[in-house]
Amino acid sequence: MQWLVTGGAGFIGSHLVDRIVDAGDSVKVLDDLSSGRLEFLAHHEGNERVAFVKVDLRDLEATAPHFEGVDRVVHLAANPDIRLGTRVTDTDLQHGTVATYNVLESMRRHGVAEIAFASSSVVYGEDAPLPTPEDHGPCIPISLYGASKAAGEGLIGAYVGTFGFRAWVFRFANIIGARGTHGVIFDFIHKLRATPDNLEVLGDGRQEKSYMLVEDCVDAMMHIIGQHNVPFTLMNLGTEDTCSVRRIAEIVIDVVGVNAGISYTGGDRGWAGDIPRARLAIDRLVASGFQPSAASEAAVRQTAELLLREILAEHD
Amino acid sequence: MQWLVTGGAGFIGSHLVDRIVDAGDSVKVLDDLSSGRLEFLAHHEGNERVAFVKVDLRDLEATAPHFEGVDRVVHLAANPDIRLGTRVTDTDLQHGTVATYNVLESMRRHGVAEIAFASSSVVYGEDAPLPTPEDHGPCIPISLYGASKAAGEGLIGAYVGTFGFRAWVFRFANIIGARGTHGVIFDFIHKLRATPDNLEVLGDGRQEKSYMLVEDCVDAMMHIIGQHNVPFTLMNLGTEDTCSVRRIAEIVIDVVGVNAGISYTGGDRGWAGDIPRARLAIDRLVASGFQPSAASEAAVRQTAELLLREILAEHD
Repeated sequence: MQWLVTGGAGFIGSHLVDRIVDAGDSVKVLDDLSSGRLEFLAHHEGNERVAFVKVDLRDLEATAPHFEGVDRVVHLAANPDIRLGTRVTDTDLQHGTVATYNVLESMRRHGVAEIAFASSSVVYGEDAPLPTPEDHGPCIPISLYGASKAAGEGLIGAYVGTFGFRAWVFRFANIIGARGTHGVIFDFIHKLRATPDNLEVLGDGRQEKSYMLVEDCVDAMMHIIGQHNVPFTLMNLGTEDTCSVRRIAEIVIDVVGVNAGISYTGGDRGWAGDIPRARLAIDRLVASGFQPSAASEAAVRQTAELLLREILAEHD
Repeated sequence: MQWLVTGGAGFIGSHLVDRIVDAGDSVKVLDDLSSGRLEFLAHHEGNERVAFVKVDLRDLEATAPHFEGVDRVVHLAANPDIRLGTRVTDTDLQHGTVATYNVLESMRRHGVAEIAFASSSVVYGEDAPLPTPEDHGPCIPISLYGASKAAGEGLIGAYVGTFGFRAWVFRFANIIGARGTHGVIFDFIHKLRATPDNLEVLGDGRQEKSYMLVEDCVDAMMHIIGQHNVPFTLMNLGTEDTCSVRRIAEIVIDVVGVNAGISYTGGDRGWAGDIPRARLAIDRLVASGFQPSAASEAAVRQTAELLLREILAEHD
């Protein structure tokens, strides 16, 4: 089978490419390398089952030809920095919504009908019950990143309903692990390297979210994609527990091995549009026969260790 | 108060402008006249409280300056033809999603924080329980029109959550009445004028939806806007009953006064992406103290009579 993975040189994408190769399939990676890195795919160099194309998904005419001969698309490409939307308001529209339309339209032009999409827990907004099931409504995101994910889900629904596509939409918890290029753990390590005696935490530290290892995330996707016999599958991907930002700060300080105090900027959230508390109901995932290997706190500790190693290696 | 109504020269927009003028307020109409018509506003000519600007909302720089000095925006502009998305896939993205972003961004630039938005029952998709309450989830639209409305809701949520906007999002049933420029009744009248002995109906005629008079729709909007003390209000606007397409065909034949047979193209829906059955729960609307004046069938008959008169007048 010929896969195409957008954002395949990125954090989650490069792990998914590993799994596709492990499964014996071929994969074409489309990435603009804005946050993805070729080095994340370096271990596949010389493997003719892995192809890489640098392309800007905002450009439909440049994007579409690469969908020729593809059987299945996994659309992961997006702006990874949720906070950016508070300063630059059109990034998620262009790199999220418009890019997703261009991917779907490229598929339609070339008769490709299967798509998996990385949506996010942030589509649920901030008033959802916890844990949040897939059938929660209404979904009113409070960030432009969340708006672009909700828009992507709707576009995919339209291509399923209008053009006979088949889709798997995954609403991700916070996905963490090796090759991370952003996020709270990544930020904390960098902050502690700059000022080892104090870690400044955005908000009051009581924000509490679920964390899932990237390996569990891509294993779950591979487990679900192709399994369900309905045109549209919607599934939360996460873990059953949460970890507070305060606890993450303690773990990262411990892993980095510094004697730092923690100061809080205050307020119930990191920034306008941040969702203070998030936990996904993963009953559907578990019922499908998949169980995450690590809970939130273990995932956080493991990720802190891996990212510290990567960051130290990079700066050697 | 200074209002700004996008799509204010259109079917619903021009009726809303009438209400705003009745209320003693001022209104600026932004419309590209792609489906709106200046004649729908002709009765306000010479009234200095009504201003008209022809502008393409896809162009942010051309749009934004008109938001200077505005207190409240009602964003109605959109492609009105749901079926078009089956042939031209980027119309709803550009005239819906991108235009909505441009409206919100124009507001942010000029410190305008209040927006009412015309969303649609089609955001609920086709598997929703009937009648469908506002908190139904997940909302997976099956048309590109529906996708653009879902995207608009998400963008508005993001501007509320990130930039302190205040919003009223209305999910419309089928809104019908005078000045209609599209829709099933409009189509049936035109078909009967072309072939008075037979009316071809798309689908099997058993599609069944709720219809609301445009006067009830704009009265309900005026009743709700400004009334609620929460940043984000979501409300269905519709009637409590439905009318089948078969029944609409009979009513239109009766109103036009021809002796036509009815033939059906077959299938459970009019086109790919059409939703065969739709009825909105209007408990929230009723609890707010508003009751529609006409049920679906009465609204259909009244509209058929009005549109026939308009169409005859136009072709005189």
